[in-house]
Amino acid sequence: MTTLYASIDLGGTKIAGALAGSDGQIVVEKTVPTQSLQGPEAVVKRIAELVHDLARQIGRSPAALGMGVPGWADLPNGVVKFLPNFITQWRDVPVREWLSPEIHCPVYLLNDGRMATLGELTFGRGKPGCTMALFTLGTGIGGGIAVDGRLHLGPLGSAGEIGHQTILPDGPRCGCGNRGCLEVFASGPAITSKGVWLMQCGRAPHLSEIVQGDHARVTPKEMAQAAEAGDEAVREELIRAAEYVGIGVSNMVITLHPDLVVLTGSVAQIGPTLFDTVRRVVKERVGMFPPDNVQIVDSALGVRAGLLGGIALAMSQGLMS
Amino acid sequence: MTTLYASIDLGGTKIAGALAGSDGQIVVEKTVPTQSLQGPEAVVKRIAELVHDLARQIGRSPAALGMGVPGWADLPNGVVKFLPNFITQWRDVPVREWLSPEIHCPVYLLNDGRMATLGELTFGRGKPGCTMALFTLGTGIGGGIAVDGRLHLGPLGSAGEIGHQTILPDGPRCGCGNRGCLEVFASGPAITSKGVWLMQCGRAPHLSEIVQGDHARVTPKEMAQAAEAGDEAVREELIRAAEYVGIGVSNMVITLHPDLVVLTGSVAQIGPTLFDTVRRVVKERVGMFPPDNVQIVDSALGVRAGLLGGIALAMSQGLMS
Repeated sequence: MTTLYASIDLGGTKIAGALAGSDGQIVVEKTVPTQSLQGPEAVVKRIAELVHDLARQIGRSPAALGMGVPGWADLPNGVVKFLPNFITQWRDVPVREWLSPEIHCPVYLLNDGRMATLGELTFGRGKPGCTMALFTLGTGIGGGIAVDGRLHLGPLGSAGEIGHQTILPDGPRCGCGNRGCLEVFASGPAITSKGVWLMQCGRAPHLSEIVQGDHARVTPKEMAQAAEAGDEAVREELIRAAEYVGIGVSNMVITLHPDLVVLTGSVAQIGPTLFDTVRRVVKERVGMFPPDNVQIVDSALGVRAGLLGGIALAMSQGLMS
Repeated sequence: MTTLYASIDLGGTKIAGALAGSDGQIVVEKTVPTQSLQGPEAVVKRIAELVHDLARQIGRSPAALGMGVPGWADLPNGVVKFLPNFITQWRDVPVREWLSPEIHCPVYLLNDGRMATLGELTFGRGKPGCTMALFTLGTGIGGGIAVDGRLHLGPLGSAGEIGHQTILPDGPRCGCGNRGCLEVFASGPAITSKGVWLMQCGRAPHLSEIVQGDHARVTPKEMAQAAEAGDEAVREELIRAAEYVGIGVSNMVITLHPDLVVLTGSVAQIGPTLFDTVRRVVKERVGMFPPDNVQIVDSALGVRAGLLGGIALAMSQGLMS
């Protein structure tokens, strides 16, 4: 019987969990609400229960757990240092110390953007030895980079925070404290706020119809549908946001010259308008060498890139060996 | 007797050559004018003569030559593909094929910014296994990156063109074709043009005195002296340029989180006004993690970083093995 590994992807609203073998085939998976308002101890307890539940379902226990967190963690010690969008911000929460005895196996942490990158590298579009960058374009913009087939972490596991490159030096303030980060122009909320604005101005009749006038239902995907149906103002805003992503990708190409750039997350659901625009901007802006051999593509794993990254993390014993 | 290696640093106005052992101690060096108007064959001939001359002076021949070129080269084949500032632009010039039989040893090419990075990594501030970025702030802005102690080249040897990150999307047109590259704000000519402008407006009396009214003598170094002497307008322009460098360095830190960022070239001669400003901007802009452990320093090798990179290149047989 092959070894089984566990993965947890901790998000602000839900916790996704899965068990899989070293081939990356998910055997069982389940999602539970995070209920982060209850504080870190309760959430970690819920994670332990989720792992137990998954193990019970198939009558087998995992050899190790890889867990992605939406923030910054001390990887060697398995301690969460800072989750910006969680109550109390989880400063110095010893997740490994709490969780490992509960689930009777080693626990390895990683930032969620880096974990998705590891998943894509190991089980998705990555090829052995490849250099790649992955942008997770969601509520925030995160990501990761891999150089010559290895996830690059830096001394704090924080390399690859590519949503926080400065794109416009005097741009709007970002949640990270900087001004004009890619995230303030091209995150999901940044894009949908433009859709809502256009609805309020009466310039997005198709979008209004698609979401039946409900602002809360506007996502980049609905905006792409509205643009397709004829909302030109919506299309222009999608292209503007995609051009900012294109600048971020261009800077990545000029610096790292990866073989592969993967765009994923809710913003990637815009589809061809995003990908075609990013490819055009990279061609326009990378003038020092022909960037033709950089592939700019969607994720092969979709929403499961993170979960599968957790499996790869567990398999590699936290990337430390 | 230890093995001897040769290095050539090909520039627009001069060719620097040296011989050194694997300890990076230069045994003999010499500089000759490039006279690039005579075309590639004459320049390559002059390089061969320079290597012969150096070898004659000490009565020994090099085992291999590492050569830096100010542009883009096909590294595996030793062919220059594009030198933007040379007559005919040296498209498809087979430098290895021409030079190797003349000097009776293997010839390895590399972009000059990457070669300086390799020199600094091997014989300068680099430590084994370190991740670093080097910015050559001169007539243009070039550079290179090393990840986990290895120079990162990308498929075309073009990774690390960090002077051509977009800093201001709608900024002035750069020589590379892009708009708003770091190079258009913080290269030597970009900075000195501000000094000349302030002199012409009568707002830089100390600078005018230092260069005796001669615009051609204005360099970043003289501007730093003028600022020190009391030219506030000059000081402001130096800080503005340094802030742009700081944005470029911040983007590098957020992406790669290097242990070390080295700033070199004529612009680095501005001194503390440059380095202090860059460090301040990085602290302000990198909000996702504490960037305290990134060292931002000058080169330990100064103008010889490139030459010593050529020695390291020759030693490693062109980084291919």
